[in-house]
Amino acid sequence: MLKLVLLRHGQSEWNLENRFTGWTDVGLSEEGIAQARHAGRILKENGYSFDIAFTSVLTRAIKTLDLVLEEMDLLWIPVHKSWRLNERFYGALQGLNKAEIAAQYGEAQVHKWRRDPHEHPPAVDRSDPRYPGNDPRYKELTERELPITENLSETMDRVLPYWSETIMSAVKKHQKVIIAAHGNSLRALIQYVDHLTDEEVTQLDIPTGMPWVYELDEDFNRVRHYYLE
Amino acid sequence: MLKLVLLRHGQSEWNLENRFTGWTDVGLSEEGIAQARHAGRILKENGYSFDIAFTSVLTRAIKTLDLVLEEMDLLWIPVHKSWRLNERFYGALQGLNKAEIAAQYGEAQVHKWRRDPHEHPPAVDRSDPRYPGNDPRYKELTERELPITENLSETMDRVLPYWSETIMSAVKKHQKVIIAAHGNSLRALIQYVDHLTDEEVTQLDIPTGMPWVYELDEDFNRVRHYYLE
Repeated sequence: MLKLVLLRHGQSEWNLENRFTGWTDVGLSEEGIAQARHAGRILKENGYSFDIAFTSVLTRAIKTLDLVLEEMDLLWIPVHKSWRLNERFYGALQGLNKAEIAAQYGEAQVHKWRRDPHEHPPAVDRSDPRYPGNDPRYKELTERELPITENLSETMDRVLPYWSETIMSAVKKHQKVIIAAHGNSLRALIQYVDHLTDEEVTQLDIPTGMPWVYELDEDFNRVRHYYLE
Repeated sequence: MLKLVLLRHGQSEWNLENRFTGWTDVGLSEEGIAQARHAGRILKENGYSFDIAFTSVLTRAIKTLDLVLEEMDLLWIPVHKSWRLNERFYGALQGLNKAEIAAQYGEAQVHKWRRDPHEHPPAVDRSDPRYPGNDPRYKELTERELPITENLSETMDRVLPYWSETIMSAVKKHQKVIIAAHGNSLRALIQYVDHLTDEEVTQLDIPTGMPWVYELDEDFNRVRHYYLE
């Protein structure tokens, strides 16, 4: 039996302010830090351990992972960071308050942007500081890889190669894996592993800071999954 | 011109208690946490940035590095952890108070254990919980690599391959490198880079939590070095 743990980062400063975050590199709120430490403690209490960890290049996910590993006395395991596990890139919506956007564009449009897998938020211009081409952490990416906006389906397209080429090979070797990432990058993984339809995946809400355990058979079919609380 | 930054971890709980630590995985003291954050802030204020980081598999060095990177908004850079950058393995002295050991063995012997590159502390038995073969973080090491005691010269022997095979190749590619490690693993690096004699290196005291900048020419000869305070 294969097992892996998925963890959405703890509450961020912008979750708290109800702003579209995407690739904006905001920190954890005090509540988010407490959630991460709690996640580490319950994993430890339940006898979990990890051989390897994967996370995004965004501070809120890395910091969540570090706090979990610190609580588990596992800071020494290898941690791999990839932009492919980043949150969905929300284009020109990044930084805007969700209520303000709803007032301007209407709830229906906001719902579409959030949940319709083929709906693009307004793009950022390449001169915009929010364009990832202006951030040194993305200097290895090709222009094709650098998003100006991203629909859910595109998020999935860039998450899945990292899952199949990198993470799956660790799981197959029976390494104990934890993935600390984001609402939409985790949705992409879950849609794939659980064979969910677009409709089903958009209904999926992943709570912040709560470890989600996946048990898989040797063919990577889900046997069961459950939260640790 | 090549440049790298060496950083000894902030004060640990056992530095504070004056105990031989070695590979025992103790945490940072409050003072050590403050030192690490301060190091991150002065690096940032002085315009430093890093592309890649190297550290040991001991919590006090990893945590120091994480705090530095957090202060610099650089948590996203790749961090490589290796047992080869660990503190010297102090054998059966690990966990003992330095004053007690001095009372039992005499100051002269303690000085020899600390500073004579060929003097071995008493070894641990392989059934001892302090033997690294009993710790999962060292499960990939061969029995030959797992120490039961270590003199300074042996510490150097296992640090240097990591320097020449891994760290130097990053520095040569003009990547900006930070190494967060320990008194004796850093001594080993400095002895090599600075062509110090055994006598000279034993005189070298590296303060905790203070970034030490090395500027090297293309042949890896030291041009100058200085602390940032």
